[in-house]
Amino acid sequence: MKENETVDDLILSGLKIIQKKNGFRFSIDSVLLTHFPAVKKGDRIIDLGTGTGVVPLLMSTRGEDLALTGIEIQEEIAEMARRSVELNNLSRVEIIQGDLRKLNKEMFNHFNLVVSNPPYLPVNQGKVSPQPEVALARHEIMCTLSELVQTAKKLLKEKGRLAMVHRAERLGEIMYELHKHGLCPSRLRLVYPHLDKHANLVLIEAVKGSGVSLKVEKPLIVYKDETCYTDELLNYYFGGGTCEQ
Amino acid sequence: MKENETVDDLILSGLKIIQKKNGFRFSIDSVLLTHFPAVKKGDRIIDLGTGTGVVPLLMSTRGEDLALTGIEIQEEIAEMARRSVELNNLSRVEIIQGDLRKLNKEMFNHFNLVVSNPPYLPVNQGKVSPQPEVALARHEIMCTLSELVQTAKKLLKEKGRLAMVHRAERLGEIMYELHKHGLCPSRLRLVYPHLDKHANLVLIEAVKGSGVSLKVEKPLIVYKDETCYTDELLNYYFGGGTCEQ
Repeated sequence: MKENETVDDLILSGLKIIQKKNGFRFSIDSVLLTHFPAVKKGDRIIDLGTGTGVVPLLMSTRGEDLALTGIEIQEEIAEMARRSVELNNLSRVEIIQGDLRKLNKEMFNHFNLVVSNPPYLPVNQGKVSPQPEVALARHEIMCTLSELVQTAKKLLKEKGRLAMVHRAERLGEIMYELHKHGLCPSRLRLVYPHLDKHANLVLIEAVKGSGVSLKVEKPLIVYKDETCYTDELLNYYFGGGTCEQ
Repeated sequence: MKENETVDDLILSGLKIIQKKNGFRFSIDSVLLTHFPAVKKGDRIIDLGTGTGVVPLLMSTRGEDLALTGIEIQEEIAEMARRSVELNNLSRVEIIQGDLRKLNKEMFNHFNLVVSNPPYLPVNQGKVSPQPEVALARHEIMCTLSELVQTAKKLLKEKGRLAMVHRAERLGEIMYELHKHGLCPSRLRLVYPHLDKHANLVLIEAVKGSGVSLKVEKPLIVYKDETCYTDELLNYYFGGGTCEQ
């Protein structure tokens, strides 16, 4: 462990994760993304812009025989993610340091599922953090939404799926990019912090192929009152249980 | 009144509407659309594919000085809509018989708000009704989604808005068409029959112009239990009140 790092519980299945004290730290978005896509036995899954590896680590709880890969451009962060994988003895999670816009062609048409919790902000919007790892996680400095969608298309097998969590306000652009690059939106879930609040996040799944009809699934409500998660969220974090006040 | 027609209550403000016994009859979609867009004093509003005129009739309750126009391609239905307007003494509602794809250029850049409850199905999907007025209301026989969006763009002033109700499963295409034709999605509301059901409808508003950010508003839930509307719906139909079992 390095001086500026912490080891944190991922709660599910006793998993641990190494994170920087003041760097990018995982949040509810990764937890929601992990539980969104359907997975099948033996699926090959890749996380684009994996950061600390939180999504592949959490996704390892979705099935014992999933083959999980995470791509991260920043060497220091990729190395930290690898140490988290070792800490959890998860040999079926592989972390690759690399630029997702310049992947080896051997990886093309190879995956059943691409997942991503990409940077939410275009570079011209909001203040860019002086910390590189926070800046790259938040702003589209190394990868735009369009580049992400195009990479996913290449990596996926025919009928393979891309699952993303993103800001609700970018839903229009997401739909446009998916349509433009031949990924067909199949499932959409809006995430509302409370039942009477605007949605802040979207979970979206798109299929490489055509003729798929979009299903807008039941609303995902995060909090049932001021302090307590809804049953669905409690289930994601703790595998069920009740809200302790 | 003709033999195959009925006069029905629109409930709000004692309005009445003439409908065919076995033709296209108004439903909740028109009620939801009526209450969705913000309106300002003196707004010029046009309903594309107005059918029996239900949307302009209902929208007349949103403000006393709104100038309302409905376009309907079918002569018989447009004439029926005109009789409904007369029945309600609503001289500020004008019904025009015409093809929205071939409108007079004098109408361009003229409206603050375009509304539409367009046909929900592409022609290659589902059984086309043998009754022409039902077929045209349900299937995109006389007007595709793309043609509708392009017409709205022409009719709107700069910063004017298009508000639509549509099937949730077509949200991807809607976003794509809006983006492609320079209308910027500004508000979206998903309509869920119940809190734990898939959304079946979307309400969407888009602005003629750019630089607008999308707000995904709180979920619109129709029923609170098996038989009773939620308070929001009761308010739309009855201006408040409680649910009588």
